[in-house]
Amino acid sequence: MSKPANRLRLGMIGGGEGAFIGAVHRAAANLDGRIQLVCGSFSREPGNNLRSGRALGLADNRIYPDWQSLLRGEAALPPAERLQALTIATPNQLHVPIAEAAARAGIHVFSEKPAGINFREVADLARTLADNGCHYGLAHTYLGYPLVHQARDMVAAGTLGRIRKIYVDYRQGWLADGLEYSGNKQAGWRTDPAQAGASGCMADIGTHAFGLAEFVAGQKIVRLCAELRSHIDGRQLDDDGAALFRTDGDASGVLTASQVCAGEENNLTLRIYGEHGGLEWQQMQPDVLIHRAANGDTRLLRAGTDRDYLLPGTRRGLRLPAGHPEGYLEAMANLYRDFADAILTGSENSVPGIDHGLRGMAFIEAMLASHGNWISLNENLPTESPQSKEATP
Amino acid sequence: MSKPANRLRLGMIGGGEGAFIGAVHRAAANLDGRIQLVCGSFSREPGNNLRSGRALGLADNRIYPDWQSLLRGEAALPPAERLQALTIATPNQLHVPIAEAAARAGIHVFSEKPAGINFREVADLARTLADNGCHYGLAHTYLGYPLVHQARDMVAAGTLGRIRKIYVDYRQGWLADGLEYSGNKQAGWRTDPAQAGASGCMADIGTHAFGLAEFVAGQKIVRLCAELRSHIDGRQLDDDGAALFRTDGDASGVLTASQVCAGEENNLTLRIYGEHGGLEWQQMQPDVLIHRAANGDTRLLRAGTDRDYLLPGTRRGLRLPAGHPEGYLEAMANLYRDFADAILTGSENSVPGIDHGLRGMAFIEAMLASHGNWISLNENLPTESPQSKEATP
Amino acid sequence: MSKPANRLRLGMIGGGEGAFIGAVHRAAANLDGRIQLVCGSFSREPGNNLRSGRALGLADNRIYPDWQSLLRGEAALPPAERLQALTIATPNQLHVPIAEAAARAGIHVFSEKPAGINFREVADLARTLADNGCHYGLAHTYLGYPLVHQARDMVAAGTLGRIRKIYVDYRQGWLADGLEYSGNKQAGWRTDPAQAGASGCMADIGTHAFGLAEFVAGQKIVRLCAELRSHIDGRQLDDDGAALFRTDGDASGVLTASQVCAGEENNLTLRIYGEHGGLEWQQMQPDVLIHRAANGDTRLLRAGTDRDYLLPGTRRGLRLPAGHPEGYLEAMANLYRDFADAILTGSENSVPGIDHGLRGMAFIEAMLASHGNWISLNENLPTESPQSKEATP
Amino acid sequence: MSKPANRLRLGMIGGGEGAFIGAVHRAAANLDGRIQLVCGSFSREPGNNLRSGRALGLADNRIYPDWQSLLRGEAALPPAERLQALTIATPNQLHVPIAEAAARAGIHVFSEKPAGINFREVADLARTLADNGCHYGLAHTYLGYPLVHQARDMVAAGTLGRIRKIYVDYRQGWLADGLEYSGNKQAGWRTDPAQAGASGCMADIGTHAFGLAEFVAGQKIVRLCAELRSHIDGRQLDDDGAALFRTDGDASGVLTASQVCAGEENNLTLRIYGEHGGLEWQQMQPDVLIHRAANGDTRLLRAGTDRDYLLPGTRRGLRLPAGHPEGYLEAMANLYRDFADAILTGSENSVPGIDHGLRGMAFIEAMLASHGNWISLNENLPTESPQSKEATP
Repeated sequence: MSKPANRLRLGMIGGGEGAFIGAVHRAAANLDGRIQLVCGSFSREPGNNLRSGRALGLADNRIYPDWQSLLRGEAALPPAERLQALTIATPNQLHVPIAEAAARAGIHVFSEKPAGINFREVADLARTLADNGCHYGLAHTYLGYPLVHQARDMVAAGTLGRIRKIYVDYRQGWLADGLEYSGNKQAGWRTDPAQAGASGCMADIGTHAFGLAEFVAGQKIVRLCAELRSHIDGRQLDDDGAALFRTDGDASGVLTASQVCAGEENNLTLRIYGEHGGLEWQQMQPDVLIHRAANGDTRLLRAGTDRDYLLPGTRRGLRLPAGHPEGYLEAMANLYRDFADAILTGSENSVPGIDHGLRGMAFIEAMLASHGNWISLNENLPTESPQSKEATP
Repeated sequence: MSKPANRLRLGMIGGGEGAFIGAVHRAAANLDGRIQLVCGSFSREPGNNLRSGRALGLADNRIYPDWQSLLRGEAALPPAERLQALTIATPNQLHVPIAEAAARAGIHVFSEKPAGINFREVADLARTLADNGCHYGLAHTYLGYPLVHQARDMVAAGTLGRIRKIYVDYRQGWLADGLEYSGNKQAGWRTDPAQAGASGCMADIGTHAFGLAEFVAGQKIVRLCAELRSHIDGRQLDDDGAALFRTDGDASGVLTASQVCAGEENNLTLRIYGEHGGLEWQQMQPDVLIHRAANGDTRLLRAGTDRDYLLPGTRRGLRLPAGHPEGYLEAMANLYRDFADAILTGSENSVPGIDHGLRGMAFIEAMLASHGNWISLNENLPTESPQSKEATP
Repeated sequence: MSKPANRLRLGMIGGGEGAFIGAVHRAAANLDGRIQLVCGSFSREPGNNLRSGRALGLADNRIYPDWQSLLRGEAALPPAERLQALTIATPNQLHVPIAEAAARAGIHVFSEKPAGINFREVADLARTLADNGCHYGLAHTYLGYPLVHQARDMVAAGTLGRIRKIYVDYRQGWLADGLEYSGNKQAGWRTDPAQAGASGCMADIGTHAFGLAEFVAGQKIVRLCAELRSHIDGRQLDDDGAALFRTDGDASGVLTASQVCAGEENNLTLRIYGEHGGLEWQQMQPDVLIHRAANGDTRLLRAGTDRDYLLPGTRRGLRLPAGHPEGYLEAMANLYRDFADAILTGSENSVPGIDHGLRGMAFIEAMLASHGNWISLNENLPTESPQSKEATP
Repeated sequence: MSKPANRLRLGMIGGGEGAFIGAVHRAAANLDGRIQLVCGSFSREPGNNLRSGRALGLADNRIYPDWQSLLRGEAALPPAERLQALTIATPNQLHVPIAEAAARAGIHVFSEKPAGINFREVADLARTLADNGCHYGLAHTYLGYPLVHQARDMVAAGTLGRIRKIYVDYRQGWLADGLEYSGNKQAGWRTDPAQAGASGCMADIGTHAFGLAEFVAGQKIVRLCAELRSHIDGRQLDDDGAALFRTDGDASGVLTASQVCAGEENNLTLRIYGEHGGLEWQQMQPDVLIHRAANGDTRLLRAGTDRDYLLPGTRRGLRLPAGHPEGYLEAMANLYRDFADAILTGSENSVPGIDHGLRGMAFIEAMLASHGNWISLNENLPTESPQSKEATP
């Protein structure tokens, strides 16, 4: 008799009541029915933790008071019951410590970004992951959008010719006021160097913009000239910044990221131009990719499983025919689906990995160091990419 | 010791491999983690059925060859194991027979639209459901979009004043060719009177447009004057049509629905105007509601849990802060979530119900019965066009 | 010695201070420097008339108290000085009488629409024009937009295949209140049967929608089924209406026109679909024509003299390279330019002519004569709503 | 007897057949009927010059072979006939020499931008203009758009609170290929240091972006950190660049300008954010200003003489009610109208003047000097603004 399909057994650290991103991870993990939440430690506040776990249908003995006890408790369970992978949805300073411990226990890691709080610790983590054969997925959600893959694949196929210009802008407005002074938790830890690390805005959203630019261009940003600012009295971390940059393919560009653009929601936009035309993609309208040819011919490449003009890698990330909007949860679900498939079936792990995490740290550190001077990004990567296929379920 | 949260035990008829809408129902049901698929009969083709069920993680004994055996088999299980609700995702002619049988077995029903193939059978079903105390949810997915509720609630609150005009347009292009002649299953049954009933386009998408108009206006369409057409040789059912209509609130309007608008995807748009302004909503950009005041002041009401300008009923249907697009699956997930909550917790069932189904049938039957009273234009033109070149300076 | 280029000597009836459309005609006539205003009778109010004429640089002896004296006075001038063409920008009931008199005097006519107040008088005018070899231009401004010509020419070239559907919508909101009761002149005469004729909204804007549909489709609307309404107490003429229609090419469609869509500005939109795709054009964004192919490929055809993908007839109507928006005045200027060229150089007159005027009258009269054949929806609902809360889990 | 309204007698240098911008100036000057072209020297090629002048209706004796003979010839005419103002539409290196000579002859100047080829010569010109009481208008066309004034006035009124961020982007694609090598005149002189000066892209369009940012913000950019590039082999001047900048109000921002963004038309966009919200304006859709409040409330401020929510300074620049698009020519016509009014009636000259020209030169020189270092802009302005009202007709 045939065995029903396996589901990936997932645990979660963080994401209790009131934490936006935890619910997002769970909805995304649920969407395709390939992942089962089996345990978690959702909050350091015991009541919140228990309520959150029960609301998610967990038995009390799989709801742990902290991440250390989760790892210990799960290790004591039979292999067929214990978690296989762990989602880390905590403030930044815990990303690496938890990931390190999980990897040493042979548990695959799906982590919120940034990967850590400095280049050094993430480089160490990369080695630990490789040594333990663990998969690592970084929640660069925007890289889960199908039309981002369309853009990347069109660039790689030479549709635009040699790339000359890359403009990437990420504008939010939610920190335009001193929200951290009114008790908002999300604003609180993101503006606290002890929890967020040395950067605020660049760590939180600048890395998204940076990762998107490198991903679509297929090039690395090698140096930049930047300015960071903090616009609220008493705020210790940057809430705004911009950089001129150059890539290893000699393209130049501009990256802006700001959380004080009052009135803006979550406006991440990429525009990339080559000799033969340009592409434009906006996260807030993610089902359209605008392709302008050099002669001005403008095409809207719209998402849809039934759209033959989309490349196979694009259609693979879509669930619905054209005209049925898919959004942010579906993008993150794509990351979870590929992550689960890589672990369960040994398929290639196409989820942004620890190398993306390292690049993000190199970006943050260069931004912090620039002060209006050209700074080269740290290229000191571990010699072997840890996101290799040898990782086994 | 506390019991983990219950999940609704759901079965499904239809939706095997290759059926678009079945996967949509499952993803939507998964999203919030409140529903568990426990059994199904996914295809009348045994191989497809078994593969589909196994891929969904079902044990073989909960994968049934047909809906009759599913109802029988589940009835034999202990109450705590058997399905509580059944999703019907079959061609139209089976909607009522399956729903009737399920209701008689005390099983709640979530059905694809239209509710049935004529007013009579749906009216009978309505009585059966009431007699058996069964919930019924109709997959009017578009009524799950939060900004549709915003529109309805703004109209109800009098923001537009007395409603004068309602324009609703639903344009698709996928039947612009004779797709049913090339073996496409979805086109096949939708154009076959034996499976779809007496109407094609009006049953398939006209009912969506109709239901949306009535829902937002809070008024009933009481009479109409329509034309139906079929544009492909040999096609027996309407693939296109339009109607002038009046409501019981003395508003007038126009409804168009077509599946032969080549190049259109799934373009459902509602525009509604009252004495003080108008609202516009487009399904393909569902996170924006345009509100135009009489003085021309134009506001974009954008979706987001953090948007105080949205009404409570709107925010309840959102999962993400502004700028994180939610789409079609999230809209249907809202229906499933409310349906599950109504059954599990006794909360009010706000899902479009059998009364919506009956309205849809009344609409289809009126469309089929109407024949415009046509006036010819005066063709009595002067014999020579006066716009001739002989005219001289 | 070479003679400088001639300018067309133009007179104007109507369009004094406070009259929107008169200033529009003059700006449009000025734009290309080929037309010179030489005389006028701008208002029946002597002070307004004189001020208006002087502000336009006219000598007092070319500012006439009424149209009759203008025609007499100009006839007494040497041929090289007197007006060659006359713009009629008065309320509707004067269009034909003035045009008739002008034509009998051998003066070319450029008239506001509608051409007259009934089919009969316009047909008579058509004969007078032909008999006197006079050019006639009808201010169907929207037919002066270059991308409307692009659409027409693409349809004529078969890009869309056989035309199946035509949807044309014209929505304004300025008559949503009883503006005529607060002394607004423009609202006043447009709602007064003695000045506007038997129709309000259909004469004022319905004819634009109708003319645009026929122009682009290259087909004639042969029958229709309509409803007209008046939404303001005491208003005698229609301010709103809609029609289902058929063309002589067996396309069907819907036309809506309303002046009570509160909050709408001047929203004229055409959507036309054939076997192979569709086109969409919106007057309020006139520099883009959307072309959707049957496979969903969506192209934005954007205006610009430098755009090779535009057809020659389109580029001829453009003055600026892509990205430099041209608008309403430029569209009307195109009509004036072609009108002047036809008179001065004998080039073909491509301006909408008296035949368009006749079509418009046929349209208005059919709209007024039509009365839908209405079908009531089945209201025979079960007495109790089955979607009640008594349903239990 | 009353005298008809005067028209401003205008001459023009440059703008013969094939020159895009000359025709634009003439159409803009024509639009409101307040300006009369009386003489010109349109091309150094005699045939082109004569044909151009005659096509414009000039007598041969007012068509001059070069600008020097035009100034001499006109000086010999009776004061009531000779030109009062001169439009300079030549390559950059002639802007100042012609303007200097005209001013010394007491002729008002309307010049294409940039005002000159270096800060020094423009500062000298400023003094000459002041000494001779001459008006000067700089063709910063985009500052003629009414909604740009709306943005400026809203910022000045404090609607956004203290300004924090200014992003201005100007993207074109027409120099993405080496167009100058294929004989294109416009590309030719713009990429030739002998005719364009020391900068290409920054002089041509960077100054527009810069001027727009300063105009709307009501602040001066005091330092910047920039990179310029040239992407085509052999091209001597910049065709692309970007700068981080700071204003004297401590706002920071980014300016990008590029002519190698293949596929872009004329995409000038301004986004400005303060404590309480932001504004966004796009030149290619100039009739909408987007206002986002800090709470996410998004309003579209749409152009129209009938829109009470627009400020008086905005409505003054509009000719048409809402929904009738006005574009680029109308924006330039606003500059010409105000320029003519200032000369003819002594009204205040609100056209961008020589001080704008100086600011543009300071910008260009700072961009050229930066090389990724922070550079302060030259603040060495003449002590008295030459754009004073003492200028007399």
